Amino acid sequence: MGKQAKQSLLAPLLLLVTIVNGYAQNGALVFQTDFGVKEGAVAAMKGVAYGVSRDIRFFDLTHEIPAYNIWEAAYRLQQTLPYWPEGTVFVSVVDPGVGSERKSVVAKTRSGHFIVTPDNGTLTLLADAIGIDSLRRIDETRNRLKGSSESYTFHGRDVYAYTGARLAAGVIRYDEVGPALPPNVVRIPYQAAQYQNGSFTGNIPVLDVQYGNVWTNIPLGLLRENGLQYGDQVEVNITVDNKLVYKGVMPFATTFSAVAPGKPVAYVNSLLNFSFGINQGNFASQHKVSSGSLWKVTVTKKPKP
Amino acid sequence: MGKQAKQSLLAPLLLLVTIVNGYAQNGALVFQTDFGVKEGAVAAMKGVAYGVSRDIRFFDLTHEIPAYNIWEAAYRLQQTLPYWPEGTVFVSVVDPGVGSERKSVVAKTRSGHFIVTPDNGTLTLLADAIGIDSLRRIDETRNRLKGSSESYTFHGRDVYAYTGARLAAGVIRYDEVGPALPPNVVRIPYQAAQYQNGSFTGNIPVLDVQYGNVWTNIPLGLLRENGLQYGDQVEVNITVDNKLVYKGVMPFATTFSAVAPGKPVAYVNSLLNFSFGINQGNFASQHKVSSGSLWKVTVTKKPKP
Amino acid sequence: MGKQAKQSLLAPLLLLVTIVNGYAQNGALVFQTDFGVKEGAVAAMKGVAYGVSRDIRFFDLTHEIPAYNIWEAAYRLQQTLPYWPEGTVFVSVVDPGVGSERKSVVAKTRSGHFIVTPDNGTLTLLADAIGIDSLRRIDETRNRLKGSSESYTFHGRDVYAYTGARLAAGVIRYDEVGPALPPNVVRIPYQAAQYQNGSFTGNIPVLDVQYGNVWTNIPLGLLRENGLQYGDQVEVNITVDNKLVYKGVMPFATTFSAVAPGKPVAYVNSLLNFSFGINQGNFASQHKVSSGSLWKVTVTKKPKP
Repeated sequence: MGKQAKQSLLAPLLLLVTIVNGYAQNGALVFQTDFGVKEGAVAAMKGVAYGVSRDIRFFDLTHEIPAYNIWEAAYRLQQTLPYWPEGTVFVSVVDPGVGSERKSVVAKTRSGHFIVTPDNGTLTLLADAIGIDSLRRIDETRNRLKGSSESYTFHGRDVYAYTGARLAAGVIRYDEVGPALPPNVVRIPYQAAQYQNGSFTGNIPVLDVQYGNVWTNIPLGLLRENGLQYGDQVEVNITVDNKLVYKGVMPFATTFSAVAPGKPVAYVNSLLNFSFGINQGNFASQHKVSSGSLWKVTVTKKPKP
Repeated sequence: MGKQAKQSLLAPLLLLVTIVNGYAQNGALVFQTDFGVKEGAVAAMKGVAYGVSRDIRFFDLTHEIPAYNIWEAAYRLQQTLPYWPEGTVFVSVVDPGVGSERKSVVAKTRSGHFIVTPDNGTLTLLADAIGIDSLRRIDETRNRLKGSSESYTFHGRDVYAYTGARLAAGVIRYDEVGPALPPNVVRIPYQAAQYQNGSFTGNIPVLDVQYGNVWTNIPLGLLRENGLQYGDQVEVNITVDNKLVYKGVMPFATTFSAVAPGKPVAYVNSLLNFSFGINQGNFASQHKVSSGSLWKVTVTKKPKP
Repeated sequence: MGKQAKQSLLAPLLLLVTIVNGYAQNGALVFQTDFGVKEGAVAAMKGVAYGVSRDIRFFDLTHEIPAYNIWEAAYRLQQTLPYWPEGTVFVSVVDPGVGSERKSVVAKTRSGHFIVTPDNGTLTLLADAIGIDSLRRIDETRNRLKGSSESYTFHGRDVYAYTGARLAAGVIRYDEVGPALPPNVVRIPYQAAQYQNGSFTGNIPVLDVQYGNVWTNIPLGLLRENGLQYGDQVEVNITVDNKLVYKGVMPFATTFSAVAPGKPVAYVNSLLNFSFGINQGNFASQHKVSSGSLWKVTVTKKPKP
């Protein structure tokens, strides 16, 4: 970090702001929704946030979460949050229960990140992977866009974007969000990775959609502890609802180019989880593989001939 | 606004810029086009703008306006502009008549926002909803990227992005855009909302595409004045070109969760207009409903049994 | 440029940073990938970059390059880079050979722009159109995100985004990227534009996808030198792999509105190359025209009657 001192004359100013205000936020506001970008909802959220402060740095995680898919929202947060510096504020709005009794909260993770979200399962995977340090319910009497009370259906703009912006900009401190709650967030049940009887089993939480690669929740550490090494051949079984979808053998390699174009290969993805795909091909579409809680993968090391 | 004073040491600097220059702009430049983001046109526009000033804050409304759909461009501006602070500069490039005689203008709304656009109907709904304070024709002898005169077909980059950036950054004042025009913008005809003989009628200006909800132009105020209340049952008729597409009864509620998943529900959208959808479903695709000037909705309150 | 001095009090600060550090970078970091924006890869890259410096200005060229399509990555860079100010840093990650022996490099163009990319052909068109001033191999012992060595497959985040951010922010100078290489980048062969026997021939490098217009690599200069003028009628032949796909006559005009809606028209696109389309229609889909090295266009001026 020593080198950063010379990178800009503005950095000390921002640092000073943080010190003066005693806030941990870093000015970044990262949005995730299932709104898409074909219409104006995301732009309205950003307009409200920009109205709070011109110093916020705006980012998008994705606005292409499939509609109402809380599980995928949870996954995308877990996938990306660790790469953002401490103090980054995330606003995640995937909210099928808008208007019902779900709580609007800000969570602070053990890593020092903030997430503004409905407490509807969106925090499941962060809670498991990183841990929730504390949780506050948004006090809408203070943290709600003025003049927005007629609008019953866009909490994303009037409450979440507005509160996230105030927090990111240091207009409010974390403790000014609202009353503290016990840090027991709503969780979606899902199958954990395990090693048993010579086989690894796990879930397919998500696909690497752009390339059609299949990602599992089986971590590299578990593979190593149980002797799987690069160069090994593995048999991969995929089931959905206990029905076999795919069965095949492939090498476990450090790179796609370890196999010819069109051939399957297992690898460790950028999250350090067991994954597989087809070199320059699309495994998911070719073998009709999808993701979700019903999808299961079994991986067994083949003995050397 | 009192709390904003403490949010940053940079804010006073930006404020000072504004005061020194006597400009009303706030540094934000918001782009809307029908270019999509698969190719480089949007990035070229932003490159030109960044070349004007490094202090501009860049935003995207959407680049997914259907090709040549001026009506939807008009709608997206009306939908989002009110949520941006005064002095925000919008650049909207949906321009089927590029190269023809349509005028290149900057409009200032009564709310103090600026829109850089071809005057081809894009300003229709802002003119009606907010009002055009004044209009200036872009003087291309001054406000056109140097060396771009060979390029006949990309006004978006060479004139609109360039002028928008100069305005947003305070390189030029509004009166330096070019000569004033009468503030009578080109308007697309469309059907207004009304209440008559016990029924509300209106248009479907746009769909809430991501969720398949149907939005009308019938405002909450009109509903209230004529006695429609939450909890009432309403009969909804949808016609296109006077042909019946849908007829059904649904409750008028404050939240989707007022009905079971799969059931229709009427509500007020974030723009405070009468809308309807299916809880956790897609009304538009299920009932083949689209939007545009030929689509009409009639809403009638059912008597209490 | 004299007017820019008054545009902001921040500009002098940024300028001062540049002067003090002796760097040519301007703070902008522009991303291009084939990752799409449905998942978290792009956001993880930006998180890493933001962790390097809060003063970077983030932009996206596109994340919709078709998977593994190095040619299109090369084209999009050539198309947009000239519109960005000198010192802009581009990070381009279209990397089918990730993990293989392709080199990770930073190129400096003769125009003073920087591109962080695998040297796999991505620099082909910039090398021809603008010229590569110099090339450096990224020294991953210094320019790689700490703690990322387990991750074999996401150089985009751990090496390219990280190095691009350090360069854009001035944390490192260009000569600190790594050892200099001869500026002979990997090139994809492609057909050049030419004029012979009264006809212009060329390639279709890319489509204007949003509108279905066909863009060629035949420059306006070549047309002019050989007497083609606006108002002329031209016969256009399109072949793929020497098989005729389209043959038709159209005017060469300065604007689409020179022909009736639905009629074909030839024009010069925003890159000043010969192009053609259908006024308010989609030429590519109507005539099943695509782009790539096998697609060839012949343009012949029709004699005046």
